Amino acid sequence: MDYAELLIKRRSIRDYEEKAVPLDVVKDIINDSIKAPNAGNRQIWSFMIINDKNLLKKISDSNKNAILRGIERNPNSPMKVYEERLRDETYNVFYNAPCAVFIIGPAKAPTTAVDCALVASYFMLAATERGLGTCWSAQGGLIRDPDIMKELGVPENQEIIAPILLGYPQSIPPMPDRKEANIIKIHGVE
Amino acid sequence: MDYAELLIKRRSIRDYEEKAVPLDVVKDIINDSIKAPNAGNRQIWSFMIINDKNLLKKISDSNKNAILRGIERNPNSPMKVYEERLRDETYNVFYNAPCAVFIIGPAKAPTTAVDCALVASYFMLAATERGLGTCWSAQGGLIRDPDIMKELGVPENQEIIAPILLGYPQSIPPMPDRKEANIIKIHGVE
Repeated sequence: MDYAELLIKRRSIRDYEEKAVPLDVVKDIINDSIKAPNAGNRQIWSFMIINDKNLLKKISDSNKNAILRGIERNPNSPMKVYEERLRDETYNVFYNAPCAVFIIGPAKAPTTAVDCALVASYFMLAATERGLGTCWSAQGGLIRDPDIMKELGVPENQEIIAPILLGYPQSIPPMPDRKEANIIKIHGVE
Repeated sequence: MDYAELLIKRRSIRDYEEKAVPLDVVKDIINDSIKAPNAGNRQIWSFMIINDKNLLKKISDSNKNAILRGIERNPNSPMKVYEERLRDETYNVFYNAPCAVFIIGPAKAPTTAVDCALVASYFMLAATERGLGTCWSAQGGLIRDPDIMKELGVPENQEIIAPILLGYPQSIPPMPDRKEANIIKIHGVE
């Protein structure tokens, strides 16, 4: 697909078809993703594939509860704006996507956030190129239940940076508005 | 350009032609970059364009000295592996690129690293699509001299996340090897 078209089609998808994503397709997308630039080409990223809507629902319920408890403890929490939605029983932080891929890296290593975001960006574009939709669900990664972390098998010294939903989009929404790029300063030739 | 071709051509470029990058081209690349997904579509990123090889050389000299002083203080520093190169007077952390764009975000905000890396990833692809080369120079962002930060005009509550070189490549090297993708676990249908 032409990159200009890809830029338009890569949108955050929150409405998925009832159609499983073949594992081979997920792996192909991952294999394109790891072509991303990364610090010292050390490729510190790992992937977890969750092709199980029941498990995703279980994580969603647990995370919603944990976030709501956080808001109760701290009414100034930045999550407060999501409270009403989080209290909606029909709301699933994974938007009922058939699949999620968690991009994981060494906890607290200096380049983990950046390297995982770079590979996540490539992941979302590679999925779009194959007609799939994605959405980075920050709430999906806020797992506070150690039993769920154990069930998932996230190694103890690793952290989830990018929880990305994956599925076939019901439709592709238009690009939300962008602000004018904030160019703080231009040094040299203008 | 087709995305499959773009994936191959987007390489870290460390050898640039003696040819300035027109400011309009830099701005076009930035305008494509900000189509990147980002937390809550808040677009917390800012850009600084440095179209001035003398200023880049000054930053490079200062950063090299600061990194070397750090290695002297701490011989176990992870930067130790770069010591020989850093002591080479001909080495420029910006690889004599004619231009650099610093992607900047709010210091210590929870999504700054990730949001700036997402937009940086888009920046590198958009540059490649236009026949330009890029390289993320981590050493370029390690500015320890407050006078240089002042001269640059980086606001005090902001930090440089992605210092990206930009210029016309002398040549495009082949993709360095990738390890097999590390899929920790597959839950559900295999």
